[in-house]
Amino acid sequence: MTLLTPQRQLLADAALRDRARAVVPGGVYGHMSVLKQMPPSYPQFYKRGEGARVWDVDGNEYIDFMCAFGPMIAGYANSTVDAAARDQQLLGDALAGPTPHFVELAELLVDTVAHAEWAMFAKNGTDATSIAVVTARAATGKTKLLKARKSYHGANAWFTPNPAGVTAADRANIIEFDYNDVASVEAAVAEAGDDVAAIIVTPFRHDGLTDQIDATQEFAAGVRAIATRIGAALILDEVRTGFRLDAAGAWEKYGVRPDLTAFSKGIANGYALAAVVGVDAFKEAAASIYVTGSFWMGGVSMAAAVATIGILRDGGVDAMFSAGDQFRTGLATQATAHGFTLHQTGPVTMPFIRFDSDESLEQVFAFTDAAIRRGVLLHPWHNMFLSAAHTVEDVASALERTDEAFAETRELFPL
Amino acid sequence: MTLLTPQRQLLADAALRDRARAVVPGGVYGHMSVLKQMPPSYPQFYKRGEGARVWDVDGNEYIDFMCAFGPMIAGYANSTVDAAARDQQLLGDALAGPTPHFVELAELLVDTVAHAEWAMFAKNGTDATSIAVVTARAATGKTKLLKARKSYHGANAWFTPNPAGVTAADRANIIEFDYNDVASVEAAVAEAGDDVAAIIVTPFRHDGLTDQIDATQEFAAGVRAIATRIGAALILDEVRTGFRLDAAGAWEKYGVRPDLTAFSKGIANGYALAAVVGVDAFKEAAASIYVTGSFWMGGVSMAAAVATIGILRDGGVDAMFSAGDQFRTGLATQATAHGFTLHQTGPVTMPFIRFDSDESLEQVFAFTDAAIRRGVLLHPWHNMFLSAAHTVEDVASALERTDEAFAETRELFPL
Repeated sequence: MTLLTPQRQLLADAALRDRARAVVPGGVYGHMSVLKQMPPSYPQFYKRGEGARVWDVDGNEYIDFMCAFGPMIAGYANSTVDAAARDQQLLGDALAGPTPHFVELAELLVDTVAHAEWAMFAKNGTDATSIAVVTARAATGKTKLLKARKSYHGANAWFTPNPAGVTAADRANIIEFDYNDVASVEAAVAEAGDDVAAIIVTPFRHDGLTDQIDATQEFAAGVRAIATRIGAALILDEVRTGFRLDAAGAWEKYGVRPDLTAFSKGIANGYALAAVVGVDAFKEAAASIYVTGSFWMGGVSMAAAVATIGILRDGGVDAMFSAGDQFRTGLATQATAHGFTLHQTGPVTMPFIRFDSDESLEQVFAFTDAAIRRGVLLHPWHNMFLSAAHTVEDVASALERTDEAFAETRELFPL
Repeated sequence: MTLLTPQRQLLADAALRDRARAVVPGGVYGHMSVLKQMPPSYPQFYKRGEGARVWDVDGNEYIDFMCAFGPMIAGYANSTVDAAARDQQLLGDALAGPTPHFVELAELLVDTVAHAEWAMFAKNGTDATSIAVVTARAATGKTKLLKARKSYHGANAWFTPNPAGVTAADRANIIEFDYNDVASVEAAVAEAGDDVAAIIVTPFRHDGLTDQIDATQEFAAGVRAIATRIGAALILDEVRTGFRLDAAGAWEKYGVRPDLTAFSKGIANGYALAAVVGVDAFKEAAASIYVTGSFWMGGVSMAAAVATIGILRDGGVDAMFSAGDQFRTGLATQATAHGFTLHQTGPVTMPFIRFDSDESLEQVFAFTDAAIRRGVLLHPWHNMFLSAAHTVEDVASALERTDEAFAETRELFPL
């Protein structure tokens, strides 16, 4: 079999990388830096997006399974969301106080999320997880925060996975347990004595570089029961999962409801917004803390969120699951046909792929490199994201290309 | 003298407050909450802004001297800024990576801010001050942060002025000194031993409830010399002052340059953006830390920032100072005419007013209440903000109304 390796030019991208290196530490920082993190053929800079597709600065088109790492959930340049945002932008974003969208969105979240009796807004997912923690401490008068080992809850000094610039004091009140291990949560509680303010947990284990693992019913119910027993807050970190599993709450399937939930990413289809929602028992504490930001009352992202949540409630989540099923089934069939054992884990709306016996990631890097050169944007070691804008045709077209990518990978790693 | 008290209706505002109380802790939280913070006639919810004016949800119009607490700097609904942002919004905001505006804005900041050799971007002012601190710790391997007593540097657990939900560990590495008191900085250094990562300071003392006081040359040069001597970073927190004093840096007038500067608020005329800029000696450390956010690479606010900084460099800052001079001179003349001793402190672009012998704030609350009822939005105990959009006519019209407000205040507090 002779494979054509599609030729792409990344000349504008290379020029921007050079300019960025001169004026930005590391060129590009954080989760979107491709240096050291991604296979060599990935572009760094993008020009535009539409529906489920993005175009890099050299004009190359990709069917995108990263959705900007989650913010895009109803399609890039979604006309309904953008029109709602535009209507408010013409009136103003940061004004002398909040706009009516502030109230409208809080009411919508209370109506949408099963346990929510109130909402607050911020800009970053890290803002939302941090506000939840501070609220829990204010409510309980206690200090310790229990979290799962390796779980990511944000990029401030409390949570960043990289210890550079972090002090011992920043982590002094964090005690770790193992995900899905109720006994280890009990051990953490014992270590904390009578001083646990909150248990923070993601709806499923979505750490990088490893198979995604759903919470067991026993674990979800277990952390709920423990939090209730010791008078701590149960914080569900839905920054990544929000509206991609169940708009009413990721653990509704288990009948388990947290006290506080953190949202961000997809909540406004890419407009910068985060939210904390909670039960009434924590409302007074939430009102007692001082958290704020210069742009937190801006109406544009709130108008966008109202429109986005409307789309997701009105069939958007179902569409996302359909597209995810189609993609997962297609990849599984192709992998088998090419003689690969492909592990696909996590919900189909947030898929994670891993090749069997590929600890070095050589095969998955080769596969995703072959895919990006064919116009399919995948991630070799982080969960991916589907959206309500991924059509049957988008997924089918992506699968034609991944079939070639599997074939190329097989040529590099013969049976 | 018979004074007419203008009648305004705040019916839509009252209805929104009721709805907000039901679904948001405290109704509205943070610096924009009027409850307990502002005189009784202030509206809470706003509909739109244009130039230097805002309209509340009942349609009442105000000449606005708060500029959304700083974000508005070139005028609400500025057509140049909004067009630049709109062009990028049509292409997409959160994409699969940064857009060319990321590089363009970093280059512009390096060109604009005298000490800047690189830039990084985030969403909140608190993000920017925090990134600067983490960078300083990564660069120095030290932990202590020296800050001025009462200086506000953000709303996270390190910095929030309200202790609810804050733990001792959150403040374990902060040592305080007194603003403009070099000896107290030396005492803080001595207390920290050989473990100071950074000194963070605002360009002038802009605490609430008290006269604004400029940094002395001796203080600015002193903290610079101390930081250099002990190998710590000097962080200038220009989140509030950025581009309202000197776009090249607030302490350029003293020839004093920090290692790191934090910007936000006015940088993009209300679009959510923050920036850290620094000297090359801290670039490697900045690249070594892990900070990121879901929306930090979005191109819309960066396009808006490029347009905003262009306006400010091209006469915008001068226009702001002119408007500020006009306003200060007018208020001073009126206060004297009505027999008040009015203390006006801070730069004219960020004015602060205080009535003599008014510790209870009764007089300034009465004055600002009388002003808001006449369509002038002032603040009774926080610095205010001018913008490049405040025209001679805007300020003159505001002054006609403040003259009446002084008269009403004099009737309430007879000589």
